[in-house]
Amino acid sequence: MTQARRGLLIILSSPSGAGKSTLSRRLLAWDDTLSFSVSATTRAPREGEVDGRDYRFLTEAQFRHDVGQGEMLEHAHVFGNFYGSPKAPVEAAIDAGRDVLFDIDWQGAQQIQNSDLGKHTLSIFILPPSIAELRRRLEGRGQDSAAVIAKRMLKSWDEISHWAEYDYVLVNDDLDETNERLKGIIEAARLRRIQQPGLIEHVRNLQLEFEDLQ
Amino acid sequence: MTQARRGLLIILSSPSGAGKSTLSRRLLAWDDTLSFSVSATTRAPREGEVDGRDYRFLTEAQFRHDVGQGEMLEHAHVFGNFYGSPKAPVEAAIDAGRDVLFDIDWQGAQQIQNSDLGKHTLSIFILPPSIAELRRRLEGRGQDSAAVIAKRMLKSWDEISHWAEYDYVLVNDDLDETNERLKGIIEAARLRRIQQPGLIEHVRNLQLEFEDLQ
Repeated sequence: MTQARRGLLIILSSPSGAGKSTLSRRLLAWDDTLSFSVSATTRAPREGEVDGRDYRFLTEAQFRHDVGQGEMLEHAHVFGNFYGSPKAPVEAAIDAGRDVLFDIDWQGAQQIQNSDLGKHTLSIFILPPSIAELRRRLEGRGQDSAAVIAKRMLKSWDEISHWAEYDYVLVNDDLDETNERLKGIIEAARLRRIQQPGLIEHVRNLQLEFEDLQ
Repeated sequence: MTQARRGLLIILSSPSGAGKSTLSRRLLAWDDTLSFSVSATTRAPREGEVDGRDYRFLTEAQFRHDVGQGEMLEHAHVFGNFYGSPKAPVEAAIDAGRDVLFDIDWQGAQQIQNSDLGKHTLSIFILPPSIAELRRRLEGRGQDSAAVIAKRMLKSWDEISHWAEYDYVLVNDDLDETNERLKGIIEAARLRRIQQPGLIEHVRNLQLEFEDLQ
């Protein structure tokens, strides 16, 4: 029996420096039916950033219009810029049985979980093994000032404080192990009843067959 | 980091003949941290049945007393006998990080999912590929009369009609594949936030560490 699957909205949140970007890249390389939700933003492109790959760069007027039309699954105003997740590509993907990965913070996670696609979400929070390790990873990038790192640490704690709003919470002690766990969690979630619209037809066929016997 | 896990209440329901007993046996052989919830009953032991292994055989007075004391997670009256799941062994197991497997029908599943241990349940329904196959398996046992089989078929349909009340629904086309899926679903569910009480302490430690930095 072939069953058309409905895709998942996989929400991956974590404080900056807990390994989320590396884990996201690995997941996308692992399974090509999994695609990344490219965020829309009103901030200016940085050097090397490509429209449609890194972000969808919108004017503030375009962004506000899209929000007004209900075309953003979630959006937020951060440090003077708007960020959001366009809805149309997500709906197209999950209807075609492909999962979409969201690298978003707790505010975005809350909005998506409370949207009309909320029942198809799988939310996972990645915790660092320690704050010292988190700080080390933030410093290790070597590209940010102490002030920026201090600001990120504050934001990290704000993010961590929302850990209990997620279905799964993994402590990223070991990248390979966390990656394997993520894959197992995603594979199991694909089997959830709610992701299997073909079951309704299967049960209808069982019912017809049962009635024929009576 | 060591995390004391909280065990799962794994509810496996299906119509008679869909392969549930075989799948239960395989799961119990797969992982010895998984134990079977032995039902209590007021019906008389059949030949070869051992008290405490196949059932806990109780008098009706004992059974009613236990229900009155809230010592049954679920119970039902079926064909003139009482059946139920004693609560104490389940609580002891899940507090020790061991999962408990329940082979119960939709009525028991509803009661457990709505009990105070409901948040630790993982509910899975096994569907047959077809009614013809279900009937073939029921007849194949060769130990029941046509009347008994007809009665079981009616009960089977009643059971199937509750498929949509379960977290996961698997069509048992292939026993090995269904078994692998069950294992994956259980392994993922063990990682759910709610099964990981150690996370609270981990986050508390992160908070202390963060505050020390301020």
